[in-house]
Order: sequence, then structure tokens, then C-alpha cells
Amino acid sequence: MNLSTDQLNQLSINIDHWVPGHSVDCVIFGFEDQKMKVLILKLKGINLWTLPGGFVRKNQNLDEAAISILKERVSFQDVFLNQFHTFGGLDRKDLDSLHELLGDQNKKLLAWLGQRFITTCYFALLNIKSVVPQPDPMSNQCKWVDLNNLPILYADHKEIIHKAFSHIRIQLNYLPFGLSLLPEFFTMTDLQSLYESLLIKKLDRGNFQKKMLKLGIFERHKKKITGGAHRAPFLYSFNLTAYNKLLKDGIGFM
Amino acid sequence: MNLSTDQLNQLSINIDHWVPGHSVDCVIFGFEDQKMKVLILKLKGINLWTLPGGFVRKNQNLDEAAISILKERVSFQDVFLNQFHTFGGLDRKDLDSLHELLGDQNKKLLAWLGQRFITTCYFALLNIKSVVPQPDPMSNQCKWVDLNNLPILYADHKEIIHKAFSHIRIQLNYLPFGLSLLPEFFTMTDLQSLYESLLIKKLDRGNFQKKMLKLGIFERHKKKITGGAHRAPFLYSFNLTAYNKLLKDGIGFM
Repeated sequence: MNLSTDQLNQLSINIDHWVPGHSVDCVIFGFEDQKMKVLILKLKGINLWTLPGGFVRKNQNLDEAAISILKERVSFQDVFLNQFHTFGGLDRKDLDSLHELLGDQNKKLLAWLGQRFITTCYFALLNIKSVVPQPDPMSNQCKWVDLNNLPILYADHKEIIHKAFSHIRIQLNYLPFGLSLLPEFFTMTDLQSLYESLLIKKLDRGNFQKKMLKLGIFERHKKKITGGAHRAPFLYSFNLTAYNKLLKDGIGFM
Repeated sequence: MNLSTDQLNQLSINIDHWVPGHSVDCVIFGFEDQKMKVLILKLKGINLWTLPGGFVRKNQNLDEAAISILKERVSFQDVFLNQFHTFGGLDRKDLDSLHELLGDQNKKLLAWLGQRFITTCYFALLNIKSVVPQPDPMSNQCKWVDLNNLPILYADHKEIIHKAFSHIRIQLNYLPFGLSLLPEFFTMTDLQSLYESLLIKKLDRGNFQKKMLKLGIFERHKKKITGGAHRAPFLYSFNLTAYNKLLKDGIGFM
């Protein structure tokens, strides 16, 4: 199924407002069921999943373009956003898929979209429970998928996701990932699961909790209500002042 | 002084070979006299220093464009090169300076150069003593300057340098900066100076050496020949196998 004539017209009219050959893609990470998740969209007409992305308006800088995408897809709020890499390979064009999507109706648009697109990529970290993702005009579905179980993705989008994740791991000590990915109140087990997902290794429970609590960046709250009353775990939240102060020099935890 | 007609013609002919609106800039770092240095070029005709940079050929990917620049400026060899950020601000065009440089002779070129340029930036780490930098066709001088004492630079190039340095600091545990910036044989004092320049703080000598040598990534050689025979420091080099193995998981030194 091709795009409707209306949708095509809408795109064509806008061509002149956009920077040619440059796009922005966002790898939006969340954490749920003890797993890192990524938000992907399903392109209309062709059976392929993509990252949320878009073009750059001539009156927009790159950060603004990325923020627009996040606003539209996840109603941008409390999202940590970071540019991490620009992909400019010669194979960054995909005329076959575009042909399938657009047909032969609009040659100007096809030529514009068919040039090599250099794409500047951002990663975002957010609390899955706080957003309701929306598909864009080019897509009809969006969903969270496991980082470790990605479907076939458009062009080099899988490579982009893996690169984003490796950047997060390298910058781990400087990123407010706990604050961004966890709900406001969490247990030490939640935090440990998150660390384990990012470090890709199991950690010793006692040792983890001791080291973490020593950092002085948490506030302890009432115990989490569970079935059994005894051994219910404490809930914690971040002490923002202490957390931000520590992040500046890097949390040298691992 | 404007560019010569020959130089202008050379640039104009090439316009069609280049990706419009996209450039690549390189922050080339070296280490000398216990200080971090950056390589800059002086633009012909206007009294401004710039970073080594260039356009992207339509048949080049971004990494290839950066490698060309390094090859031409410092005869690329043993250089650690890493993309770190793409700058796409709306103010990334500088028609006044271009007017001064190009005059009114070539309106097509002026318009081409006068559009907003999104620039993808790389940092390189190299041993200053191993290279003889060359100016490019747009410049008539190049020199190493102290990172902490930069002259006035073209457009946002100062911001680009500071961003590059902050990326190096964040990725410190994963970068082969010792191997790239130091000569093959070095003393522990050389290594400590380098660490101090990157961490921007003084370190305790005894503690530093103890921690460093514990990493098991060095080979010890003959003592450095100095004036007095006693207390001459040992020379070290990296054991590449051990060093690269440790870098994979990050050298958790600081």
C-alpha cells in the first residue's frame, strides 16, 4: 500500500522548508521488566520497522529537530537527550523501499528522498510508564522492543541502536540514567537490574547495595507493600542535589 | 588579501563534487612541554585562525573525509581518530568573512559557501614529534597552540575544541590516549603530567606510580640518561596486548 495522495502532497510541499540530505534519528530507550527497550515505528506500505526520525527544517538547529521528534512521538517531557553520532555512509539511501512506498507519482519527491541522507543521531532515556508513544505520518504503529531482540530494521537503524547503546555504556558514570529510566520510587533490586542490563553482567547483591548506599545520593522511603509483610524491600528515590553533584565528576561506581 | 583567481577557480570547479552544506572539522590534539596542544591554521586574507577542516565529496563517507584532512595536514600515521559531535547551529555561516576572503568575483561560490554548514567533528590524538603539519590551500600557516591559551578562532571553532576535550575526558578510561600522545618511551612523570592535563588536577606522585604499575600494561626499559647518574628515572613503553585488553573494559584508574 502506498501513501495517500494527501500525505504525498503534504511531504512535497515541505521539501523546500527542509535541509536537503540531512536527517535526525532518535534512539529512545526505556527500561521495563528488567530489560532495556527501544521505541520503533512501523512504516506504512512496507513491512519494515524504523527509528523515530525526521528531517531538519531550514530554520531549525539539529537539537531542535531532535526535540520536535521527541515531542511528537512521546510528548517530550523529562527526557534526557544526547547527540551521539552522525552516520554518513554512501549507502544511506534506499530507493527500492522508497519506490515501494511512494510509487512513481512524485518524481521530485522521490529524487529528494533518494539522495544520500547524512543522519545525526540522538539517544533519549525515559521512564516508559510516563509516555504514550504515537506513530508519525509515515508510520501506522509504534512499540517498545527488547534491545536484545530487535526485528529487521530499515537501512542501518540496527547499527545506529547498537552504537547508541555503546555510547551509553562508555558515558555511564556521567549519565543520569537511573533518574531517567526508573520510576520516581524504586527498590535497590530495580536499580541493580538496570545496572546489570547496562553493564551486561550479573552483580553481587550485597556488594551492590553497600556500594550504592555509600554514594549518599538516595532518599529512603516506606517499604514497598508486597504480599508478605516481612522482608518487604525499601523504596528509594534520588536526592537530586547530591545526584547531580556526583554526576559532574562521574559516578565512579563500576 | 583575497584568494588568487587560480585558487578561486580550483574551488569553484570542485563545488559539484561536494555535498552541499556539510563539512568536516578535525580537532588534532598533541601533548608537549606537559601541556595539551591543538593544531590550528591561519586563513589566507583574513586574520583568523581555524581548525583543519574540509568538505565532503559526494563519493566519500564522513570518516573518509576526516581521514583525507588528516592525511593532508599531518601525513596521517598512527593517529587515533574519533567522531565526537555534529554542530548544526543556524549561525554556522559567516558571509562577512567570506566576502573579505573571496571578494565579489564568484557569486556562485559565495552563495554555495554562504549557506549554513552542518559540520561533523572528529578529534585526533597524536605524538607531536612524529608529524610536520602542513597548511591547506585556504591557509598560509599552521601551528600548535596551548589548549588553555587559544587565540580568537573562526566561527564556533573554540566551542568545538572545548567540546572535543570534554568528550576525551568522559571517555578517558576507554581511549588509548597514553599510546597516542606520548612518545614510544616515556617516564612515569611524563605519564603523570599527561593524566594531570586531562583530569585538570594534580595527582600524588607515589600513589599514581603505584596504581599505574599495578595495571600490568607497561614494559620497563633502561633508565633515562640524565646529567647525574643516580636517581635517573626508568623509561617505560606500553605492552600493547595488555593495554588493548584493559581498554576494552575501561581502565578504571581514576
